[in-house]
Amino acid sequence: MTSLDPTEKYFLVINTFNVEPEHADHLLKDLIDLTEKDVSKRPGFVSANFHIAADRTAVINYAQWRSKGDADAMLDDPEGQAGMRQATARATKVSPVFVDLIWTSTALG
Amino acid sequence: MTSLDPTEKYFLVINTFNVEPEHADHLLKDLIDLTEKDVSKRPGFVSANFHIAADRTAVINYAQWRSKGDADAMLDDPEGQAGMRQATARATKVSPVFVDLIWTSTALG
Repeated sequence: MTSLDPTEKYFLVINTFNVEPEHADHLLKDLIDLTEKDVSKRPGFVSANFHIAADRTAVINYAQWRSKGDADAMLDDPEGQAGMRQATARATKVSPVFVDLIWTSTALG
Repeated sequence: MTSLDPTEKYFLVINTFNVEPEHADHLLKDLIDLTEKDVSKRPGFVSANFHIAADRTAVINYAQWRSKGDADAMLDDPEGQAGMRQATARATKVSPVFVDLIWTSTALG
């Protein structure tokens, strides 16, 4: 289970992959396959959390890494690049937003 | 602590508040104040998780509600609307994306 906790100080990326609605399931599957086979085995990987927009025009990954260096290492690796290029082939646009988690309020304690 | 778990089936909104970088801290504070005083006390509130973009051009809330009806009830309430209008006064654009959490991979078990 993924936890969101400001004290963890992870390197966070909210990555939006725009897509034609009829290709959303396929894009999601390709991204999940890449995560299972490659990304999740990389050093410093903490979590990937795949969402689909209600209107099916985007897949959104809330990604946690131990550090920016760990995330960069995957993107700098030619094999990592090739896998990402293949998995995102159906996306019309990829928009990563790098964020810090500042504050959390939860009803569940 | 917030947890991301596809089996929870929460109603999820990833809400992006664009902002001039010099107003980002103030917008974040206004949104946190509103959450503490009002939103977190609403029926069906599960969590709010406030992020700030590394380039400071956006505040992003990853919000969890028990159901769409609970989220709508706050937005349909005039007091809820007034609070939201006031708290988002510094935002140049508000872009909610309604999503389902489909699949999660985590290194931490």
